[in-house]
Amino acid sequence: MKKPILGIDIGGTKIFHALINEEGKILTEVKKEETPKTVDEIENKLKEIIKQYETETKLVGIATAGAVNNSNDKILSSTGNLPKGYRDIDFKNLNENMDIFIENDANAAAWAEYKVGATKGCKNSIVLTLGTGVGGGIIVNGSLLKGKSGAAGEMHFKMSTDKKRLCTCGAYDCYEAYASGRGLKLTYEEITGETISSYEIIQRYDKKEENAIKALVKWNEYIAIGALGLNNIFDTDVIAFTGSMAQFADIEYIEEYVNKYTVATPTKINKAKAGNYSGVIGAGLVAFEKTKQLD
Amino acid sequence: MKKPILGIDIGGTKIFHALINEEGKILTEVKKEETPKTVDEIENKLKEIIKQYETETKLVGIATAGAVNNSNDKILSSTGNLPKGYRDIDFKNLNENMDIFIENDANAAAWAEYKVGATKGCKNSIVLTLGTGVGGGIIVNGSLLKGKSGAAGEMHFKMSTDKKRLCTCGAYDCYEAYASGRGLKLTYEEITGETISSYEIIQRYDKKEENAIKALVKWNEYIAIGALGLNNIFDTDVIAFTGSMAQFADIEYIEEYVNKYTVATPTKINKAKAGNYSGVIGAGLVAFEKTKQLD
Repeated sequence: MKKPILGIDIGGTKIFHALINEEGKILTEVKKEETPKTVDEIENKLKEIIKQYETETKLVGIATAGAVNNSNDKILSSTGNLPKGYRDIDFKNLNENMDIFIENDANAAAWAEYKVGATKGCKNSIVLTLGTGVGGGIIVNGSLLKGKSGAAGEMHFKMSTDKKRLCTCGAYDCYEAYASGRGLKLTYEEITGETISSYEIIQRYDKKEENAIKALVKWNEYIAIGALGLNNIFDTDVIAFTGSMAQFADIEYIEEYVNKYTVATPTKINKAKAGNYSGVIGAGLVAFEKTKQLD
Repeated sequence: MKKPILGIDIGGTKIFHALINEEGKILTEVKKEETPKTVDEIENKLKEIIKQYETETKLVGIATAGAVNNSNDKILSSTGNLPKGYRDIDFKNLNENMDIFIENDANAAAWAEYKVGATKGCKNSIVLTLGTGVGGGIIVNGSLLKGKSGAAGEMHFKMSTDKKRLCTCGAYDCYEAYASGRGLKLTYEEITGETISSYEIIQRYDKKEENAIKALVKWNEYIAIGALGLNNIFDTDVIAFTGSMAQFADIEYIEEYVNKYTVATPTKINKAKAGNYSGVIGAGLVAFEKTKQLD
């Protein structure tokens, strides 16, 4: 019998949760809550959320910022805009009656796309989450690429050797500093000398401002350059874009660029379609996958 | 009972062959032959080589230039300095009594290192072959990363977005154009304006010529930059260097650089140790692996 799974997606400002089934279908209304400001409050909030579903499922998947280890119970790295100490939450023991697994949010999104979305059934595929930063989830031969400790899929490969843009990671010129919303902002700044938000750039783009158009074109070229390198490394079926900035990615141009220059074989480029709740779906399905492996 | 396997390594100038066992041990003297100049002659030479071993084994692994498909019987891409038409050789049917598998030479080298060499037992590891070009073989979770069609592991990700160095692949600024022998040559050229062979640069380096030292330092920085990106993508146990230029890689510096900046977890960097015959060993062991999968 197929049992429901609780999927939870912890973001910097919101926590989403809902029951899904083993096919990734959302079964209950997706609940949205504010992410509390302290670690203790977050921990208590998670306990409270999980408790609500105790009679309906024994399996929980949680999507979170940060790299997650290979047993899916521990965060290995820093976690962006979540409070200090968050990574030390004992996720496994938030509820003693439930089997709880965590996964990096970009990995969860990639797994959701692979199971129900834009990369469905594509055993060698990549999902890039374009937002304030850039997240990556990579499927190799039908499994999430986790690496030796779980930290794989970081989109921090250099786009220049000339130390042009400091990345949030402390190194220079990572893909994240070019293909993210911040990357668009820095690109516009390089063209105009003016520092405005990526939101404002998009507004100017919509008003057909020449420099905003130039910045978007350049930003798409940067995205394509990274996608080309990834296709040469992974020989993918498809690379899909998700996240708040993905709507501005010029899919047709990127696909043409990658396939013009690739030394691997041509790939599809497309937009994600698992939707805003791909974290909830993916986290639930990763938890389900883990229990299958343990069986 | 463990049966011997014939390993063959086809290079641009030489063909090596020997029997190995299932542990990657070379059992017979490694024979060396000139690579013939025409496709027909190469095909006949291979038939002749394989025939010699007919009474001793039924299993053959061949390391070759070019990307090789996932059933290990067809070359997918161009093959460097081998004659046109070489890629269309019907390797599978070179001998009707033998089970023949081919694999890309950089992949074969990586597999040899994983089984008997510098990355032994490291389930997430990369072997970079630094020569005239740069080859890559990537082990993910204990298997060779092949991608959707077998062309994965190409080290053509960009080091610049400014179209500085044309790569042999037709695109600009691939890792290959920086970390290869040609990369060293171009680096020396950028520093001095003088175009000399990488061999000559090494000679000048040995004589402590300042610009040659500068070029080698920069070349190692380029190698480290690529290794950093790869570790962030794959979270490797180890990245090892092989090929004719690997002896000039500053392992200690590269490891320090990668682990200073990585956002994944620290990796080991080292030099390959399966030796000059890693192609022979790796090809034989890939063939053995394929028969295990088919059992």
